[in-house]
Order: sequence, then structure tokens, then C-alpha cells
Amino acid sequence: MSKPHILTFETYDDWDSEPMRNCFTVHQFPVSGNLQELDQGFREQIKAFAFKGHSILGAEIIDGFPNLELIANYGVGYDTIDVDYASSKGIRVTNTPDVLTDDVADLAVGMLLALNRGIVGADAWVRSGNWASNGAYPLQRTISGVAVGIAGLGRIGRAVASRLQGFNTNIHYYSRSEKDTPGWSHHNDLIDLARSVDVLIVAVSGGPETEKIISKEVINAIGADGLLVNCARGSTVDEEALIHALETKALRGFASDVFNSEPDIDKRLLTLDNVLLQPHQSSGTVETRMKMGQLQRDNLLAFFGGKPLLTPVN
Amino acid sequence: MSKPHILTFETYDDWDSEPMRNCFTVHQFPVSGNLQELDQGFREQIKAFAFKGHSILGAEIIDGFPNLELIANYGVGYDTIDVDYASSKGIRVTNTPDVLTDDVADLAVGMLLALNRGIVGADAWVRSGNWASNGAYPLQRTISGVAVGIAGLGRIGRAVASRLQGFNTNIHYYSRSEKDTPGWSHHNDLIDLARSVDVLIVAVSGGPETEKIISKEVINAIGADGLLVNCARGSTVDEEALIHALETKALRGFASDVFNSEPDIDKRLLTLDNVLLQPHQSSGTVETRMKMGQLQRDNLLAFFGGKPLLTPVN
Repeated sequence: MSKPHILTFETYDDWDSEPMRNCFTVHQFPVSGNLQELDQGFREQIKAFAFKGHSILGAEIIDGFPNLELIANYGVGYDTIDVDYASSKGIRVTNTPDVLTDDVADLAVGMLLALNRGIVGADAWVRSGNWASNGAYPLQRTISGVAVGIAGLGRIGRAVASRLQGFNTNIHYYSRSEKDTPGWSHHNDLIDLARSVDVLIVAVSGGPETEKIISKEVINAIGADGLLVNCARGSTVDEEALIHALETKALRGFASDVFNSEPDIDKRLLTLDNVLLQPHQSSGTVETRMKMGQLQRDNLLAFFGGKPLLTPVN
Repeated sequence: MSKPHILTFETYDDWDSEPMRNCFTVHQFPVSGNLQELDQGFREQIKAFAFKGHSILGAEIIDGFPNLELIANYGVGYDTIDVDYASSKGIRVTNTPDVLTDDVADLAVGMLLALNRGIVGADAWVRSGNWASNGAYPLQRTISGVAVGIAGLGRIGRAVASRLQGFNTNIHYYSRSEKDTPGWSHHNDLIDLARSVDVLIVAVSGGPETEKIISKEVINAIGADGLLVNCARGSTVDEEALIHALETKALRGFASDVFNSEPDIDKRLLTLDNVLLQPHQSSGTVETRMKMGQLQRDNLLAFFGGKPLLTPVN
């Protein structure tokens, strides 16, 4: 039996590309991004994409593959995929949720602790070799007893909150409806949440609905003694308002794994001393990337085997 | 009523020195460390020290103050104070436990997450401005599902373990006797603990009893895929064996807030890329330092007021 044909976008680690080639006949989407480099006859053969969500996957590409039935995304976020358009053409979309939840929540808590305790600067303080002559590192701030707000109590928000409970923090959260939680305080207004906490952690989904929901007003409501941590999508934050707040010390600090226009991020962020910057590595562990690749392939195999998709998003 | 006389060692922040001067007539121990600079008549007046545990406080200094009755230490660790000798002379010693437990445990977890997820290197990756040209940050390792060992389950060890429970880790601990815990695994042998875990966190007290208990054998038992985190005292680790293990990749990584001969630490540590170095800042937050100063003064006030000491260690 011949292997089903799939089209891949971007590159994969060896531990993914080898099992992928064992299961499928793998074709590569042109690096140029120009689908016309693939001839019409070839494109008609393609029923499924193995997608990585770094580029825009909209109507133009979708229409280029008249027999496309599945877009299997590698990653939990699928905001670069036009899911509505895919749905309108009867094309299914899958993602890789759950397997990366722990890693994303771990990095969110790690970013918060590192920012609040000045861990990056403290490492440089020692490595300079001048600890003895420079004396004690400047005092930082405590986490205990602090009120932490989680914007979005989906899988990731809940995992972040669960971790932070152990740090003697008071958990507040924003979501459209109140959830079943162990005594966490619900807010149905994001500004109200921001006013009530010292630390705001963004854990909402990406996409047009949450674009710049961390607005100038929300940032001001966190306040000059507060911190903002983003483990969601760069698009959720009004970065212009954020940078202004950081430059004028209207916000104490900002830690983020995601940015507008990443990886080519706003250069003003690079020199601020009250920020912690991470290169979109929330799910970037060997263990989790292996699970993400496996889940992507399992969705593709389910599709070609006529079985129910494991983690559909539409 | 005249204020009681006390002798202070090292300097204090304004928020401590001002209330200290309000309560006491404050004298300063000579910066030279030579107690002969203080005349005998003056020394006979001194009944209490406000000590900071950075220098050695042994028989020589204690004998210089024939009417000394209290050494009030600022900090939880008192391994630089010869408590046995003080006890033999009927001198009481107090410290400042509990108030710093949360901060120390927070930093221990922060160090573990920062080390395991490469947070310091990732910040530099972004700040270089070359994220776009360098591409994705190298994959790190996950914390979920990992077995974590805590050496010493006192206040701080327990606080570290409680926090790490939320990260889906399996908690093991070493202590002389089994403790009442929520399902954590007890080991009465340190090498056995080290063999059973991926991450070993040192949380024992300092002093001669624990000197180099993190021996070459223990380090080798953690193994080439394991991490060592020290939030206790530098003296607990055989630093020569540790550096050799790090240089030969017999240990995956090391994070520490404490070192032998700190602040002038072994220069070989400064250039290793598999270490995270912190300048003894575990209790270094504004909030906690205020509480530590208050507790030190409260012990001094209790002593001069003829009341029971709040946090005696002998």
C-alpha cells in the first residue's frame, strides 16, 4: 500500500521527520511561500497538511489545494490559520493541546519568579567576577502574599494558577463565565481584575477576539508596582502602550515569551532593564516537542485511516 | 530611662537602623575586626550583639565581652556563630527563622526553573537582537513528571517541596527520620536519594555536621542527566568534585545561591554554561528583610525587657 501524501511547512527535528517519512510521502511547501512553484496536478493530490503555525495560512493557500481535507497543526495556538475559511470549505483543523500545557505553565511561573527576583541580573552580578567588590545584590521583591490575576482560565491559565497556589499567592482570574475553582476570585471585567492584583498573567487564546485586550487601560490598572507576564500571544498586548508604561515606570516589570512581529521584535524592548525576554520557547522542551510531533502524526494517521480526529478544533 | 547599649556588626538599611537607634544606643564593631580597638570599660557595658552572620563569631570575640548575654542574629543560618561556646558561657543566641522561608523556597524553585528551561540564556538570545537570524532557541528539558529530591526537610525544604508539588513532580526527601508528608518518599540515605531523582535540592542547615555532605559520590549518583540546586550553604557541597562533574558533563547542571568562600567564589564557576549563579539573595527582598530586622529587634527588646526570647536557637 502506498503511503499517503502530505505537505509539510517549515522543518522538523529528526525525531519527527523520520517517523513522518515512515508513515507518509512527505512533500515540502516552497520556502518562498509561493504555492505556484507546485504544479496544479501535484496540488490536487494533497489531502492533508502538516502545518507549523509560524506563517499565515489563509484562503490563498487553502484555495490552491482543491482536495485539501485536513490541516494538522503542530502547536496549541492556531491563530495564523484561517479556521473559519477552512470550515467553510469543509476542511478540518487539528492542533496539539494538553501535551504542552505543563511546559507553558512552568515557563510562565519561571518567568514570573525570574523577573520578580531579578534572577537574570543576579546571575550577571556573580559572573562579572565583581561580587566581592560590588557587594550585595540590590534587594528584590517577594512573591508571598501577592495577588495574582490570570487572564483566561483555559487549560494553560488553570495550570499556571495551580502552580502559583503553592507560593502563598491569592489567585484571581478573568473569564467570561465563573469556573469551578478552589476559592479563586472570578472577575468578569479585565480592568477590574488588573486593579485587584499585583501580577497579571496573560493566558487567553490568540486571534482577533483577544487582539490588544491588554490595553493601555488594563496596563495602567496593574499599576506602577505591578508586573505583567505574557505566556499567550504577542497580539494580546498593546505593545506601544506597554513600552510607554515600561519606559515611564508606570509598570514595574514585564516578562514575555511572545511578541508582536516576533522574532523581529520591537528594538526598544531589548534595552529595558525591567523586562525579561524569552524567544517563544514555552513548549520548547525535548520531551514536549516529541509529544507534539506524535500527536500531529496521530491526527494525520486517524484522518487517513478514516478514524475520528484526536484533537479537532473545528 | 536610658536606652540599652548594643553592638552591631556590618551595616543596616535605613528602615532597620532608624528603629534600631530609636530602641537602643547603637555601637559599631570595628570594621577591622579587631576588638582591641574597643576599650575594656566599654566592652564590659555590652550585654547584647545585633549580629549579621557574614563573619566568624567565635570564642575570641565572645571572650572580649565579659557581660555578653545575647547574640541576636539577623538571618536563619547561624553557622558562623560558635553556638556551643556561647552556650557554655550562658550566652543565648537567636535567629530570624520563618520570616524568610517563603522567599528562600521561591528562589530555589525559580533557580530550578531558570536552569532547566535555560531562561538566562534565552533572555540573552532575544536581547542580542539576532533572534530572527539565529532562529529558534535550543530545546530545553521539561520539569513535569520529574523526580525531585529534597535533602533536608526542615522549614525551607518543606516549603520547596510544597511548591514543587504543583509542578507534577514526584517528591522524595532525605532526613534522619521519616516525616508526616502528603505521600512524599522518605530516604534515610543521601546517596540512595540522589540515585532516585533527576533533581536534587539542598536544604539542610549549615555547620560542621553537613560539611560536604553533597560529596563526589552523591553528585555522581545524581548522574549526567541530573541537576543540583543549592539554597542552603556553600559548605554543604564538595565544590571541587562539583566543578569536576560540571566540566566533564557528569552532571547536567547546577544552580546555587551560596558558595564556598563567597563572595569571592571559585573562578572556574563563572565561565561554565551549565550553571546558574545567584549572589546569596535568597532572603533578599524588601518585604522579608524588613521582617528579619523587626524580628532581630524584637528578640533584643524581649531580652532587655526580661521577657522570653521569640526565636532562640540555644
